[in-house]
Amino acid sequence: MAKNSTVRNAFYAQSGGVTAVINASACGVIQTARKHPDRIGKLYAGRNGIIGALTEDLIDTSRESDEAIAALRHTPSGAFGSCRYKLKGLEESRAQYERLIEVFRAHNIGYFFYNGGGDSADTCLKVSQLSAALGYPVTCVHVPKTVDNDLPITDTCPGFGSVAKYVATSIREAAFDVASMCSTSTKVFILEVMGRNAGWITAACGLATSKEGEAPHILLFPELVFDEAKFLARVDETVRSKGYCVVAVSEGVKGPDGRFLAESGLRDAFGHAQLGGVAPRLAELVRGQLNYKFHWAVADYLQRSARHLASKTDVAQAYAVGKAAVELALKGHNAVMPTVVRKSTRPYKWGVGVADLSEVANVEKKMPREFITPDGFHITAKCRNYLAPLIQGEDYPPFVNGLPDYVTLRRVAVKKKLPGDFKI
Amino acid sequence: MAKNSTVRNAFYAQSGGVTAVINASACGVIQTARKHPDRIGKLYAGRNGIIGALTEDLIDTSRESDEAIAALRHTPSGAFGSCRYKLKGLEESRAQYERLIEVFRAHNIGYFFYNGGGDSADTCLKVSQLSAALGYPVTCVHVPKTVDNDLPITDTCPGFGSVAKYVATSIREAAFDVASMCSTSTKVFILEVMGRNAGWITAACGLATSKEGEAPHILLFPELVFDEAKFLARVDETVRSKGYCVVAVSEGVKGPDGRFLAESGLRDAFGHAQLGGVAPRLAELVRGQLNYKFHWAVADYLQRSARHLASKTDVAQAYAVGKAAVELALKGHNAVMPTVVRKSTRPYKWGVGVADLSEVANVEKKMPREFITPDGFHITAKCRNYLAPLIQGEDYPPFVNGLPDYVTLRRVAVKKKLPGDFKI
Repeated sequence: MAKNSTVRNAFYAQSGGVTAVINASACGVIQTARKHPDRIGKLYAGRNGIIGALTEDLIDTSRESDEAIAALRHTPSGAFGSCRYKLKGLEESRAQYERLIEVFRAHNIGYFFYNGGGDSADTCLKVSQLSAALGYPVTCVHVPKTVDNDLPITDTCPGFGSVAKYVATSIREAAFDVASMCSTSTKVFILEVMGRNAGWITAACGLATSKEGEAPHILLFPELVFDEAKFLARVDETVRSKGYCVVAVSEGVKGPDGRFLAESGLRDAFGHAQLGGVAPRLAELVRGQLNYKFHWAVADYLQRSARHLASKTDVAQAYAVGKAAVELALKGHNAVMPTVVRKSTRPYKWGVGVADLSEVANVEKKMPREFITPDGFHITAKCRNYLAPLIQGEDYPPFVNGLPDYVTLRRVAVKKKLPGDFKI
Repeated sequence: MAKNSTVRNAFYAQSGGVTAVINASACGVIQTARKHPDRIGKLYAGRNGIIGALTEDLIDTSRESDEAIAALRHTPSGAFGSCRYKLKGLEESRAQYERLIEVFRAHNIGYFFYNGGGDSADTCLKVSQLSAALGYPVTCVHVPKTVDNDLPITDTCPGFGSVAKYVATSIREAAFDVASMCSTSTKVFILEVMGRNAGWITAACGLATSKEGEAPHILLFPELVFDEAKFLARVDETVRSKGYCVVAVSEGVKGPDGRFLAESGLRDAFGHAQLGGVAPRLAELVRGQLNYKFHWAVADYLQRSARHLASKTDVAQAYAVGKAAVELALKGHNAVMPTVVRKSTRPYKWGVGVADLSEVANVEKKMPREFITPDGFHITAKCRNYLAPLIQGEDYPPFVNGLPDYVTLRRVAVKKKLPGDFKI
C-alpha cells in the first residue's frame, strides 16, 4: 500500500534489565505494526535502547525477515540492545528530551513504544508531554516489562512469570538433591535470587513447596528487616526436624542498619547499589554460628534469561501487551500502558487493559504484608493464589544440536539525517 | 512364581553426589530386576547409600508401585538417599567390608549394584573380592554415574550429558543477556561450574559457541594452571573487540601455588576441599585490574539437579547402564561395570559394553590436552565432536501446576535381622 500523509513511522526501544520474554513483546509490537502499513510506515528500533534514539542510531526492523521476527518470540534478551540510562526530570534532562523529539521529527516518527519498567514509564510519559508542548505530538505507549514484578495496576509484569517458574523449578530440583544427601553432606542450601526492593521472585520460590514443611523452608524478603538470631534459630530448628534446610534469599535483603547484606559498594547508572553475594554471606553465617555444612548458588542472569523454561502464560502476556500497545496507539491512546487484567484465578482467565502512565510512573509495587506468613519466612495461601497462575504452561524454544536456537537479528542501521554527534 | 533355591535378593545403593539421571539408572535396575523373579527375589536399596547397608537400614523397593518406579526416570536426585562415605583399603576398613557381607548374608543378598563414581567402583570391586574370600560370594556390578565425566573406559558417564546441556544452554542464554546490555551495563560475566579436577563441564560450556568469536569467550579448565596476567589480557582484549566477555570457570581452577583459587578451607568426608566462590574472586580481580562492570553466577547444585533440561541421550544411557547391570549380573559377570560405547559420532550411535572394575577403580579421566585450544581458553573441534552428541535431545519431565512433577518414594524399611547397632 502506498504511503500517504497519515502514515507515520514508529520507534520501539527496550529499557533496563532484559528478560526471557521482552523479545516476545517486541515480536508483538513488530508483527502488529506490520499489519497496519496504512498507518505505520517503518518501525525503527533504538540500538541499545533509548541511547539509540539520542544518538540517532536506529535499526530498521523492516530489514528483518518475518521468520526472524517470529523467532523473537522464543529468544531471550533484548534483540535490539537495551541500556541502563535514565532520563531524569524535564528540567534536568531537557536537552535529552528535546533531542529525542528532534530525532523523532527527523525520521517522521509519530509513535513511541517504550518497553521497560517504572523508570521508562516515566520517560515515556514525559516524552508524550514534551512532544505536545513542542508542537510535534508523539503517541507514546509504554510496554510493561520487569522481572521484579513491581509495576502498579497491571496484575503482573511480563518477564516475571518466567523467572518465577525458573526459580521455583530450580529450588525444587536443588532441594531434592540436598534431601538425598543430607545425612552425610550439605545440610543448608541457600539460593540467591533477584529482587532489590520487592520480594516477588523470592516469593515465587515458595511455589516449590507443595505442602507444609516441604522445601524451601525459609524465604527471606527484602520487605522485611533481616533478623540474624531469628534466621539462625529457624535454620537450626529446620535442620533438626527435617535433616536439612533450603533457603531462598532476595539479593536486596537488608539488615537492621538499613544496608544491603550483600552490598559491594558499586553503583549503577541509576544510582542503585550493585548487589550479589548475599548467599555466600548467609552461608558463612550458618557455618560460623551453627557449623552446618552448606552450599549456595547465585542464579544471577541465568534466572532472567532462562527462556528454555519460560512460562507459557508469561510469553502469551508479553506478546499480548506488545500487540496491544500498537493497537492502543492506533486507536489514539496516548501516555498509556497496556496492562494484564486478571478476570478469574480458578480457572485462570486474563485479558489486556489499559492504564494511564501518570498512575504508573515511579510507583513500585512491593509484596503486601498479607502475602507473607506472620513469621516472615514463607508465603501465604493468598500469595500462592496470586502467583500460581503466572507460571502455568511450558513454551519450549526450538532446539538444534541439543541447544536452544535463538535468533540474532541483522540490525541494519537507518541512515542518519541529523548533523553531528549527540553526546550522551 | 514361587521362590526357589536359585532366587537371591539384590541390593542397590546410590553413592556420592547425585545427578539429574541417577534415578533413571535406579529405574533401569529395578524394572529389569522385576522382570526376573525367577532369579532375583527382593531388591533392597540402601537408605542413604552404603551407610544403609552398614546400619542394616534397607528399603524394600517391592513396596513401591510400578508407577512410582517409572517416575524415577524423570526425577532428579537420589530417591533412596546417597552419601559421601568412602570405604578405604581392605585392611583399613576391614570391619566395614565384613559388616557389609554380614548384612548381605542375613538378607540373602547375592547381587550388589552400586551406582556411583570412581570411589564406589573401588568399593564394589573390594566387596566382590572379600565376599568370595569369606565364602559368601556376591555378584558385584558397578553402575557408572558422575557429573564430572571422569570415569575411564566408558565413553561418557551418565549424569554428565545433562549437566553439559544445562550449562551450555545457561551460558548461551546469559551471554545473549549480557550482549544486549553491554553498552551501558555489565561487560564481564563469569559463570562458575562444577569440576574439581576434570574440566569436562567447563568444556561443555564451549558448546554454546556455535562459531568462532561467539560467547563464551574464555573457558578456564582445572587441567591448566591459572595465569592471571594472561587471563586479564584476554578479558580486556575481548571486551575491546566484542563489547563484552563471557567466562566459564571450573570450581577447581588452581593458581601457580597449587591452591584452588576458591579454596574455603573446608574439607568433606573424602578429604576433598569444599569449593565454591571462584567466580566472585575472578570478578573482583577483573574489577580491580580492569575496572569493568561485572556479574557472576554460581550454578552449584542447580546444574546437577536440572532434570527439567536433561539430555535425552543421557537419560537413555543412564537407564541403559542400570538395565545392563542387572543383565550382566544374571549372566554371571562379576566385578564389572557396564559402559557406554560410542560406535559412531556422525550419526551418533552408541551401545552398552562392559569393563572390569579393576581397570575402572580410582582412575580419573581428565580432559586430554588436545581437547583444549593451544591458548588454553577454549575447546578444539575434536573436543566438540566428542561432546556434541552427549547433549542431544530433550526429555522433559511432566509438569503439574507449572512445576516439574517429581516422585518421592515411600521408602518402607526392611525388618532388621541382626542384633545391635553398627557404628559408622
